[in-house]
Amino acid sequence: MKTCLECIPCFFKQALDASRIAGADALTQRSVLNEVARVIPEIQLDATPPEMARTIYRIVHEATGVDDPYAQIKEESNRFALNIYDQLVRKVKNSGDPLFTAVELDIAGNIIDYGAKNSLNIDEELDKILADEERVIQREGARFFHDGAFLSTLKQSKSILYLADNAGEIVFDRVLLEVIRKQFPQIRIWFAVKEKPAINDALMKDAVMCGLPEVAEVISSGSDAPGTLLQFCSESFRKIFQDADMVISKGQGNFETLSGVDRPIFFLLLAKCPVIADHIGCCVGDIILLSHQGIK
Amino acid sequence: MKTCLECIPCFFKQALDASRIAGADALTQRSVLNEVARVIPEIQLDATPPEMARTIYRIVHEATGVDDPYAQIKEESNRFALNIYDQLVRKVKNSGDPLFTAVELDIAGNIIDYGAKNSLNIDEELDKILADEERVIQREGARFFHDGAFLSTLKQSKSILYLADNAGEIVFDRVLLEVIRKQFPQIRIWFAVKEKPAINDALMKDAVMCGLPEVAEVISSGSDAPGTLLQFCSESFRKIFQDADMVISKGQGNFETLSGVDRPIFFLLLAKCPVIADHIGCCVGDIILLSHQGIK
Repeated sequence: MKTCLECIPCFFKQALDASRIAGADALTQRSVLNEVARVIPEIQLDATPPEMARTIYRIVHEATGVDDPYAQIKEESNRFALNIYDQLVRKVKNSGDPLFTAVELDIAGNIIDYGAKNSLNIDEELDKILADEERVIQREGARFFHDGAFLSTLKQSKSILYLADNAGEIVFDRVLLEVIRKQFPQIRIWFAVKEKPAINDALMKDAVMCGLPEVAEVISSGSDAPGTLLQFCSESFRKIFQDADMVISKGQGNFETLSGVDRPIFFLLLAKCPVIADHIGCCVGDIILLSHQGIK
Repeated sequence: MKTCLECIPCFFKQALDASRIAGADALTQRSVLNEVARVIPEIQLDATPPEMARTIYRIVHEATGVDDPYAQIKEESNRFALNIYDQLVRKVKNSGDPLFTAVELDIAGNIIDYGAKNSLNIDEELDKILADEERVIQREGARFFHDGAFLSTLKQSKSILYLADNAGEIVFDRVLLEVIRKQFPQIRIWFAVKEKPAINDALMKDAVMCGLPEVAEVISSGSDAPGTLLQFCSESFRKIFQDADMVISKGQGNFETLSGVDRPIFFLLLAKCPVIADHIGCCVGDIILLSHQGIK
């Protein structure tokens, strides 16, 4: 997915947010914004937004000296999600269709991205999502919920590469992977996190804190981009990405960077940004399970 | 009011919106954003946001050659507001307190600024505002509704300078000024519009289209800033600004540019932007009638 002109105001907002979270004083915040302004004319609009995001967070890192501004937020998100883990498991167990209940909850867990800013909203959103009626309506009415293709691909797969998104949210991924492991015990599962800090994306230590190693082989993408920019990933990661029977990609950053890649991928995401919603053809707030068949 | 770092992403959004409304192609839109990026490091943060807005719209004008991108939107806003003029007058007439019903409706009319984007929302918002319960709650609960000071100043004044904001919205101003004229026939009223296009701010022709000359002496500020930057106003305007017994300032742009000025002013506005709401200490969406007593 290409960068839109609408992304440019958003880059400045992200830079300001990240500087503040990194504890920068007003003067440093200003110098970060000036530096972002300096690189704006150089942006290639055919690059994906996470490529520019990577540049922005590098600017923030250089100006503030803070390597991982979101460290505390990530830990809090993990703790928040671990606290509701039992609830999620119960919900899935009591459902008539544990697999797709887990898928829906997992996509809904993508709301944790907002969590850094407003934990009250997370509670509300999750309450809504945990309510049966809401979920049934969403699935039946959804043009972008390819459950049939997802199930048939699972049945034919011997290996899955699951691309993680944010800290905290990975507890929801774990719940889904536990269901997959139970229903399809023959499948080998890789769970890929980022190598280095990338906004609030999950790192290896988050995966460990959230118990992912119990359900998958946790690997690193080798990259610090908030998405999956294959050119910056490690060779070993790229090999798994190419060879896995099924790739499940979580969240907006992975969608933005992989929607133009020529291999089948299932995209699980909550459409949170109007540019992405417009690209998919859905509405902001929609729960998306998209079967991407590679470039035609 | 000073420019905040939060205003910077917003400047880019405004530049993009204005370029598109001016009919610029993608390449021109991009060059406008690049030019805004070029001037960002030069912004003085102790300048008011409308000063930067003035620069932005100048960049858009130079890149697109379009002198008044919002011309059509302004005309539509005028027509929309003129269509509900009778309703507004009836509402005021049937109210137990015509003056402050007109004040509240006038502030609510500040929503027309959003109108360019979504006329459905205007209808909804106005329906809400036109409902009795809502208004009473707002006035009783409002910490920023200085009706006592407003009334006593009116009683003592022989002249009022009313600073207009947007096209369309000025029909609401007219309804208020008609009530003032009726209750205080001794007061001379000047109604100031912008000299040249400034976003969707009202110009002389809008005032004429909306019947303002029937109720006030319509004058020009002499400036093209979307606010009242006294240094760019004409000398004749500045004299009236200084000499008028009472100044009523409408909307955010006038507030941003005059909140630091050393003379008593009544600010009527809907707090639409989080930076302004934060500055006032109110919430976004609040209806504000602020008695500013000059700098202490």
